[in-house]
Amino acid sequence: MDHTVYTQSVEKWGIFEIALAGHQDKNPFADYDIWGEFTSRNEQKKVDGFYDGNGVYRVRFMPSFAEEYTFRIGGSFREDGFRGGFQVTAPAAGNHGPVRVANTWHFAYEDGAPYYPLGTTCYVWNLQTEELQQQTLETLKANAFNKIRFCIFPKHYDYNLNEPISYPYEGTPCDSSVLTRENFLQYNGKAPGNDWDYRRFRPEHFRLLEKNIQALMELGMEADIIVMHPYDRWGFSQMDAESDDLYWNYVIARLGAYRNVWWSLANEYDLMEKKVLADWERYARIICEKDVYHHLRSIHNCKPFYDHSRPWITHCSIQRQDPYKSAELVEEWRIRYQKPIVLDEIAYEGNIQHGWGNISGQELIRRFWEAACRGGYGGHGETYMHPEDILWWSHGGVLHGDSPARIGFLMKILKETPGIGLAPMFTRWDEVAAQVEETIPGRSGYYLIYYGFNRPSFREYHFDDEHEYRVEIIDTWEMTIEDYGVFKGHFRVELPGKEYMAVRVQKR
Amino acid sequence: MDHTVYTQSVEKWGIFEIALAGHQDKNPFADYDIWGEFTSRNEQKKVDGFYDGNGVYRVRFMPSFAEEYTFRIGGSFREDGFRGGFQVTAPAAGNHGPVRVANTWHFAYEDGAPYYPLGTTCYVWNLQTEELQQQTLETLKANAFNKIRFCIFPKHYDYNLNEPISYPYEGTPCDSSVLTRENFLQYNGKAPGNDWDYRRFRPEHFRLLEKNIQALMELGMEADIIVMHPYDRWGFSQMDAESDDLYWNYVIARLGAYRNVWWSLANEYDLMEKKVLADWERYARIICEKDVYHHLRSIHNCKPFYDHSRPWITHCSIQRQDPYKSAELVEEWRIRYQKPIVLDEIAYEGNIQHGWGNISGQELIRRFWEAACRGGYGGHGETYMHPEDILWWSHGGVLHGDSPARIGFLMKILKETPGIGLAPMFTRWDEVAAQVEETIPGRSGYYLIYYGFNRPSFREYHFDDEHEYRVEIIDTWEMTIEDYGVFKGHFRVELPGKEYMAVRVQKR
Repeated sequence: MDHTVYTQSVEKWGIFEIALAGHQDKNPFADYDIWGEFTSRNEQKKVDGFYDGNGVYRVRFMPSFAEEYTFRIGGSFREDGFRGGFQVTAPAAGNHGPVRVANTWHFAYEDGAPYYPLGTTCYVWNLQTEELQQQTLETLKANAFNKIRFCIFPKHYDYNLNEPISYPYEGTPCDSSVLTRENFLQYNGKAPGNDWDYRRFRPEHFRLLEKNIQALMELGMEADIIVMHPYDRWGFSQMDAESDDLYWNYVIARLGAYRNVWWSLANEYDLMEKKVLADWERYARIICEKDVYHHLRSIHNCKPFYDHSRPWITHCSIQRQDPYKSAELVEEWRIRYQKPIVLDEIAYEGNIQHGWGNISGQELIRRFWEAACRGGYGGHGETYMHPEDILWWSHGGVLHGDSPARIGFLMKILKETPGIGLAPMFTRWDEVAAQVEETIPGRSGYYLIYYGFNRPSFREYHFDDEHEYRVEIIDTWEMTIEDYGVFKGHFRVELPGKEYMAVRVQKR
Repeated sequence: MDHTVYTQSVEKWGIFEIALAGHQDKNPFADYDIWGEFTSRNEQKKVDGFYDGNGVYRVRFMPSFAEEYTFRIGGSFREDGFRGGFQVTAPAAGNHGPVRVANTWHFAYEDGAPYYPLGTTCYVWNLQTEELQQQTLETLKANAFNKIRFCIFPKHYDYNLNEPISYPYEGTPCDSSVLTRENFLQYNGKAPGNDWDYRRFRPEHFRLLEKNIQALMELGMEADIIVMHPYDRWGFSQMDAESDDLYWNYVIARLGAYRNVWWSLANEYDLMEKKVLADWERYARIICEKDVYHHLRSIHNCKPFYDHSRPWITHCSIQRQDPYKSAELVEEWRIRYQKPIVLDEIAYEGNIQHGWGNISGQELIRRFWEAACRGGYGGHGETYMHPEDILWWSHGGVLHGDSPARIGFLMKILKETPGIGLAPMFTRWDEVAAQVEETIPGRSGYYLIYYGFNRPSFREYHFDDEHEYRVEIIDTWEMTIEDYGVFKGHFRVELPGKEYMAVRVQKR
């Protein structure tokens, strides 16, 4: 016999959650299941729930329509079932829904608002001290980033030898007191002394994750969740297929209802020695089947790209392969993959010994502008040496660099763009020029021209003979926009002969 | 009956010259010839002479051995012949002979002294006012450049609309008073109003050229003579084949005996609309036949490279094709062409509107170091806006930029390299490392590692466990060399976390 439950209302793209007591014998994570089926006028979705410990099972659901929903809960977690309903209200201010691919190469929220991904990376900020997590959130609040990449599993790597505050599984870690900068690479993979039960999750670990996803949501940020990664000493990167699949299902059941979640199957998939292509494709199948909301899906490389033309990949999450050309290749990748190009790693601002983590703020911002004017998106990270090894790139904390403010300035420029996103436009070999994507009708007459490391003292332009154009000179580094006046036909713009200048031209 | 003439002695690789009166009727440039045959114990060479105007014919010869020479002069320039002899003495200090390709990818003077080409470009400095020419020579004297690219023909281009002080042919130029920055491209090639006799040279034009080649020789500089180029309004780039060949023969006869001459068949051969591949190959044949000294030969591109694997090409004179990667490609080109790689154009330091002429001194020097550590050579040019349009790149004058001093510093580093030239050495993806060319025996243990735009705070090294190494930290921009001490086995070098640093490691 089914029980009937009526709950409070939920906003559209909010989370409906129901908690129910169930079996505690055997291994509830693996041996019992719970599901929910949700029905409204416009949608019907069936989702898995999950075991949250202490005899409690939960089902979460994200409604996509502001209307009345009914639901059924079932599964082996207990003998009886549940039915009920709830009202979905209009989304609150700032809730635009999940981010979707729009216009082939760009993104928009589900409500149609443009979304320009200018994100940062803090791999395991969520596994640092509570104090440091709060500091990270404060820093994010004060900056313009609208996406952050981070991991579910802890990280073992240079500058990342400390223990996480939480583990995803029941068990005990190896002794990390022996680790040094010199020997840590010998402990890659599953180091001796680890003793984990890969079939028994620690729900606290995931609750912490969810608390942070929620906090990011409140900051208007997307959580680009790195579900797997190779920088491991605990063996989480080397579990058997059954444990992997259990993990993927658990992660999707817990996190899928958060509208700001993106799935990054892996950071540097190609460094995960124990996984083969079939594994990645199997994880992808699980996501495609179980994530009924179709959150964005990507897989990030170290060296070779994953085949970004695979249909399940929604956008290219790229680490640059050439130390010299990265953002400059956005046009080629756009043509090849016909998907949004997000350069999640193009080297980080910093001064550590590694070449991927020691470019200047100027060079990082140059790459962001190159990417933007070619119709793609740069990604931020920061790796300055720190007396306590707290590097933003992995630990969060505070920012020390010059680039974040300039990324905020670029965000402002992008938000002032008509339509959804910029498209590369070939003008002359010695400028990087953008217009709005041509598929947006009636939006022509917007041009953004970037000079990068070139330092012209003037440039000449000609768009047409009929229209008047408002011309602005943008100093992308000093973050200034100078109104240069209105011009028609052929015209000349005097420039300061400095690096990192741009010119914005808009039809009046 | 032959006359007998004994002349003064000449130094080895100096110029022996004999002037003789001859026919003045018809067109002496085309209708009469003069030749000289020179014989010593170790060589026998026959060279063409040339008509120098006013009834005077000259034969020039560069002896390659310090020994006694005899000669015969003949030809249709007059009925009788001449014989004679002279003594060749040891070369004076600073005279190392012509530059030759050595060691596949590098250069050396004929006496074996290494030559590292770090050159500059002043296309028509020799056709500016006498005062400006003198200023250019003073500037060259105060700087480290050991090669300069310049043209025989005048140049017509942006910033180059003025008349040259001299013309190579008898005739009259078109009216240049109508030229403006806006219309000059319409006068490309042979503009209306030009009236030239392409069969009658103006010897004064060539004497001026020779005076400057001699002045460069005295400064220890190579004259990389651009024999043809497309930036023309007088029609010199569009002469018929017979006139072209007459010109090539005349140039070789006049200039071949100068030990510091290099033949650059063209600047931007591919922009010369009226020439086809067979023309370039014909000019090359003329040089190979008539230049008995085998001066270095190259041909410079605008966009597509000439096929640098052609046997007559001694070294690759490259203009970068990709705005982002230039010096970074030196390794690839070395492997492909098995010839020295000289990046005669990798964009110039300056601030003019053109992208090829407005990079910073830092970026130019970065390219020089990238090229050097990959076993090639950068090239300098400077294009700063000037109230009277005197830009070093074309007119000479004084230098305004930051790069020349740093090129001098790089020259010092190169001169301190054992052997002849650097070879790229793969170490780690995030450094550009050089050693000495492996074909130099017994010279191992020299390593030069460059970090470019990367800013490591430290780096770790390991060469072997046995030897001691002297370590120096080089700031390529501040031009400092810090002795960091002697190390063995694994060692760590603290660096300032700045751009443009290098580390030099030498076995003790």
